[in-house]
Amino acid sequence: MTSHKTLVPVAVLGLGAMGRALAGAFLDAGHPTTVWNRSEGKGEDLLARGAVLAPTAEAAVRSAELTVVCVVDYGASQAILEPLADALAGRVLVNLTSDSPERAGTAAAWADEHGIAYLDGAVMVPTPLVGGADALILFAGARPAFEKYETTLKALAGQAAYLGENHALAAVYDLSMLDFFYASMSGLVHAFALAREDNVAATALAPYLDSITAILPAIASGMATAIDAGDYDGRQANLGMMTASVDHLLHMSRDRGLDTGQLEAIKAVADRAIAKGHGADDWASTIEVLKVKD
Amino acid sequence: MTSHKTLVPVAVLGLGAMGRALAGAFLDAGHPTTVWNRSEGKGEDLLARGAVLAPTAEAAVRSAELTVVCVVDYGASQAILEPLADALAGRVLVNLTSDSPERAGTAAAWADEHGIAYLDGAVMVPTPLVGGADALILFAGARPAFEKYETTLKALAGQAAYLGENHALAAVYDLSMLDFFYASMSGLVHAFALAREDNVAATALAPYLDSITAILPAIASGMATAIDAGDYDGRQANLGMMTASVDHLLHMSRDRGLDTGQLEAIKAVADRAIAKGHGADDWASTIEVLKVKD
Ligand SMILES: NC(=O)c1ccc[n+]([C@@H]2O[C@H](COP(=O)([O-])OP(=O)(O)OC[C@H]3O[C@@H](n4cnc5c(N)ncnc54)[C@H](OP(=O)(O)O)[C@@H]3O)[C@@H](O)[C@H]2O)c1
Ligand SMILES: NC(=O)c1ccc[n+]([C@@H]2O[C@H](COP(=O)([O-])OP(=O)(O)OC[C@H]3O[C@@H](n4cnc5c(N)ncnc54)[C@H](OP(=O)(O)O)[C@@H]3O)[C@@H](O)[C@H]2O)c1
Repeated sequence: MTSHKTLVPVAVLGLGAMGRALAGAFLDAGHPTTVWNRSEGKGEDLLARGAVLAPTAEAAVRSAELTVVCVVDYGASQAILEPLADALAGRVLVNLTSDSPERAGTAAAWADEHGIAYLDGAVMVPTPLVGGADALILFAGARPAFEKYETTLKALAGQAAYLGENHALAAVYDLSMLDFFYASMSGLVHAFALAREDNVAATALAPYLDSITAILPAIASGMATAIDAGDYDGRQANLGMMTASVDHLLHMSRDRGLDTGQLEAIKAVADRAIAKGHGADDWASTIEVLKVKD
Repeated sequence: MTSHKTLVPVAVLGLGAMGRALAGAFLDAGHPTTVWNRSEGKGEDLLARGAVLAPTAEAAVRSAELTVVCVVDYGASQAILEPLADALAGRVLVNLTSDSPERAGTAAAWADEHGIAYLDGAVMVPTPLVGGADALILFAGARPAFEKYETTLKALAGQAAYLGENHALAAVYDLSMLDFFYASMSGLVHAFALAREDNVAATALAPYLDSITAILPAIASGMATAIDAGDYDGRQANLGMMTASVDHLLHMSRDRGLDTGQLEAIKAVADRAIAKGHGADDWASTIEVLKVKD
C-alpha cells in the first residue's frame, strides 16, 4: 500500500450499501477517508478499517480535497449538499447518486453557481465489485477535475469512464444501461418462476441461462449497428417467428397462473411493429414503434 | 473431414432460417444430408454444399437414420409428421421446433404410439452459432437414442445437453430461457431508444451494455440460490432502492414519449413485493408475488 501522505484525502457522504462500498475501496487504496451518514450507526466496519467518522457533512467536506456523495436520489443529495455550498467551493464534488439527466443538469448548474468543480457519475456494478479492475463507473462534467483526479477515481473502479462535459451524459448512459438491466433482472426472476412451475429448480436452470447472457453482447452490438443505420435485416431471426415464441411464453405463463404483465407489454410492442410491416425484420426494428408521443 | 460412409445419414425437414443452419452444420460435419421444405425455393445453397433435396418429406425420412424437424411450431411439425408415422417407425426423430411443454408431451405420445424413437429438443443459439463448439441445443426424451446419436447431434451443437427422459423438459428449459431472453431483448431495444432521445447513438451505448451482461451470470446464480432457499438477503442491493431506479426510468421514458409498458409491468411487480414486505430484500424476492392465480 502506498503511503497515505501521497494520496488525496477524500470524503464519502452517504453510507448506504453503495456509499460503504465506495469508502471501502478508497480505504483499500490507502486514501485518508472521512465518512458521514445522515443517520447514525452505519459504517462501523469502515472505522475499524481506518476511516474517520465526521460529526457533520461539512466537517467531512472540509477534511478532504474530493468529496463523493452517493445517496438514494438527487432529492437526498441536494438536501445534503445545499447547506455545504461554501465548504465545497473550490473543491471537487463527485455525485454518484443515480437520477435523471434533468436533475443532473440542475445539480450541475447549482455547483457551477457556487464555484464547485462538479463531476456527475453513476456506479454501474453491484457493491461487491466496487474497487475492482473490471468495475465500471461513468463520469461526466468538469473535464479538468476528472483528469486531475483520474487516479483517485480509479480506486473506485478500474474502468472509470469519462463521457464528456455535458453533466447529463452519465445519467443518460446510466439510465439506458439500467433500462436494459431491470428488464433482464425481471426476466430472470420470471424465468425462474416459470421453471419452478414445472418442477425445475432455479439452481438447475441457472447454468443454462449463462448461454443466453453469452450471446447478448453480440446481439447488442448487432442491434446497435442496425438501429443507427435504420436497417433491420431479419434473415437470421425474424420478428414474426420471435413473436410466436413470446406468445408461447404468454400462454405457458397464463396457464401456470403467473403474472404476464411484462410479456404482454413485450408482445404489444412486437405486434405493433409487425402491423407496421416489420414481421420479416430483426427484433431491433421494434425501436420504430417505441416512440408513442412527441 | 471423415468419409461420408462412416457417418449417419440424416434428414432435415423445414428449411427456414434454423432448418437451413442445422442442415448446413450436418453438411459441414460430413453427414449425408437430405433436406425438404413445404414450399419450394429454399435451401439452394445447401444443394451446392452437397445436400440432396427430397421430393417429399417421406422420401427424406426414408433416406435417413435420423430425421430432424425444425419448423415454426408444433402445429406445423405435426402437420408434416403425422402422415409420416409409418416411414418414421423404427427410426429416430428429433424435433427441434420450439413450443410448449404440453405440446411436447402430446407429440411424444404420438411418437410412442407409432414406435418412433423420439427426442424433443430446442436450439438455444442464433443461427450463425449452430454447429459451433459453444452452441447449446437441449434434448429430452428417448435416452438410448440420445446416447446412440450423441456424436451426430454434436455436429449441430458442441453443447448437446440431455436433460432427462421426460420429453417436456426441453420445452420447459427452452421457454424459461426464452423468457429471460425476450425480456432482455426488449430491454435492449428500449435502452437504445432511451439513449437516442438524448442524442446518444446506439453504437456509442452498446459497448457499455456489455458491462451489464458481464454481471448477469453471477446475478442469475446468486438469485437461483436465493430462490431455491427462499432467502432473499438484500444487503448488497435492496428492492426499495432498485424500484426507485425503475421509477426514474419510467419518468424519463414517459417524459420522452416512449412506450412504458414493460417498465410499468416491472414496477407493478416490484411494488407488490414491497407491499408484501420485501422492500429490504433482494430483487429475487419478487418471485414471491409472480404467482397470481392457482
Ligand atoms: N447498491 C447497489 O448495488 C447500487 C448499484 C449501482 C448504483 N447504486 C446507486 O447508489 C445510490 C445509493 O444506493 P444504496 O444501495 O447505497 O442505497 P441504500 O443502501 O438504500 O442507502 C441509501 C442512502 O441514502 C441516504 N438517504 C436517503 N434519503 C436521504 C435524505 N433525505 N438525506 C440524506 N441522506 C439520505 C441514506 O441515509 P440514511 O442511512 O440516513 O437513511 C443512505 O445513506 C443509488 O442512487 C443507487 O441507485 C446502487
Ligand atoms: N432463427 C433462430 O434464430 C432460432 C433460434 C432458436 C430457435 N429457433 C426455433 O426454430 C424454429 C424454426 O425457426 P426459423 O427461424 O427457422 O423460422 P422461419 O425462418 O420463419 O421458418 C419457418 C419454417 O416453418 C415452416 N412452416 C411453417 N408453417 C408450416 C406448416 N403449416 N407446414 C409445414 N411447414 C411449415 C416454413 O415452411 P415454408 O417455407 O413452407 O413457409 C419454414 O420452413 C422455431 O421453433 C424457432 O423458435 C429459431
